[in-house]
Amino acid sequence: MRFTSETSLDGVSERLFTLGEIPGVLWTPVGAAGARPLVLMCHGGGRHKKAPDIVAHASRFVTECAFAVVAVDVPGHGDRPKEEEYHRIATENQARADAGEDLAPLIANFQALVARQTVPEWQAVLDAVQELEHVGPGPVGYWGVSLGCGLGVPFVAAEPRVRAAVLGLGGASASAEAAARITVPVEFLLQWDDERVPRAQALALFDAFASPEKTLHANPGKHAELPAFELDSTLRFFTRHLGHGSGTS
Amino acid sequence: MRFTSETSLDGVSERLFTLGEIPGVLWTPVGAAGARPLVLMCHGGGRHKKAPDIVAHASRFVTECAFAVVAVDVPGHGDRPKEEEYHRIATENQARADAGEDLAPLIANFQALVARQTVPEWQAVLDAVQELEHVGPGPVGYWGVSLGCGLGVPFVAAEPRVRAAVLGLGGASASAEAAARITVPVEFLLQWDDERVPRAQALALFDAFASPEKTLHANPGKHAELPAFELDSTLRFFTRHLGHGSGTS
Repeated sequence: MRFTSETSLDGVSERLFTLGEIPGVLWTPVGAAGARPLVLMCHGGGRHKKAPDIVAHASRFVTECAFAVVAVDVPGHGDRPKEEEYHRIATENQARADAGEDLAPLIANFQALVARQTVPEWQAVLDAVQELEHVGPGPVGYWGVSLGCGLGVPFVAAEPRVRAAVLGLGGASASAEAAARITVPVEFLLQWDDERVPRAQALALFDAFASPEKTLHANPGKHAELPAFELDSTLRFFTRHLGHGSGTS
Repeated sequence: MRFTSETSLDGVSERLFTLGEIPGVLWTPVGAAGARPLVLMCHGGGRHKKAPDIVAHASRFVTECAFAVVAVDVPGHGDRPKEEEYHRIATENQARADAGEDLAPLIANFQALVARQTVPEWQAVLDAVQELEHVGPGPVGYWGVSLGCGLGVPFVAAEPRVRAAVLGLGGASASAEAAARITVPVEFLLQWDDERVPRAQALALFDAFASPEKTLHANPGKHAELPAFELDSTLRFFTRHLGHGSGTS
């Protein structure tokens, strides 16, 4: 793990890093010392580790909960090189969708393919970040919607360090089998008028989680229109299940 | 409006009253003065105005938000005499359900019938309570699940003083038309394993609300197993939409 820059703003320390081929960013409270909960976040499709929604969530997780937050670029996104195979499949899928084919299962299959790479990548990121003294072996949360849901469901199913997950804007097409292996608390975000994920598919994914505690929050609006008040709810959800971070010293 | 008793406990003043034939209870902060938001609550079927869930919610609305809260007995419930017609229909419905008939539409039709009586009753309650100096003409919220949803949907649709509503554990069978006239913010509670309300009917009712801001909270469990953390969410929802109550003096 190699840190390439460090800045701080409004009480949040931001360190860019690379772990092998993976570019990432770690946010922690300025002056943090000792173990604390860690939230791994995944950006949406076509975006990157410092997308505005990621940064906005991370800032509040750090300042209000004293958590550490880590986000990395998904293959083919952000600072990573174009992946020829993924690019070819995505281009083909778009052409098939333009020709009238149902886009949802195409996206789901694509995300399942990418997840075979990202699950071990993210596990390596957890290994490395949790070795840092000011992160340590605390409980882990996962946050990811849309692409971050498609990749997150198999990750949360595979990784026992994850103790709570916020997922959403995804469907059951490719994820139901992995979802049925998830038993940690899940907060699932659904947009009632999602133009990309059929409502029935999203409800079926919520239904598939084996978690005794899972809660579905559905709101009107399209795929990209998650209401701001859901971030407040996310903060409370993670605080309830991961605890508060330790102080800064 | 005639007050019949007054007690106070832990900062909450409780006054029992009758308004014509209607027995009710009003909770306000001890020493309250001046206008404040008012929440009208309706109990579930077979219960009454001081059922444990009503009292628990009211206590937190009063102590944490400085709201006034009013609840009355539904006809045939609590301190009200048995209503022969309602009793006959309920008995017939139970017999039809025991004989294998689908219970949900029978309940829905019954609630629609009772609502023709409760909507004007509750409007009269608002009129009377809002004349009190320490309640006044503030914004009104409505809270009701199960029977309180079946009766609440037509009430919220009819009463412009209601500015936000928490509803749930109900289906669209008899309520969809009234729901389509509701435009205020709604928080809708759905139990994923509800043995009394079919999931599709509950989702259809959520879908029917015309409110630009509506949010569905679904959790695992049966009809009577609403998780305790939803009360926290309800407090935040009403605070967001009704504002904080004024101080006590």
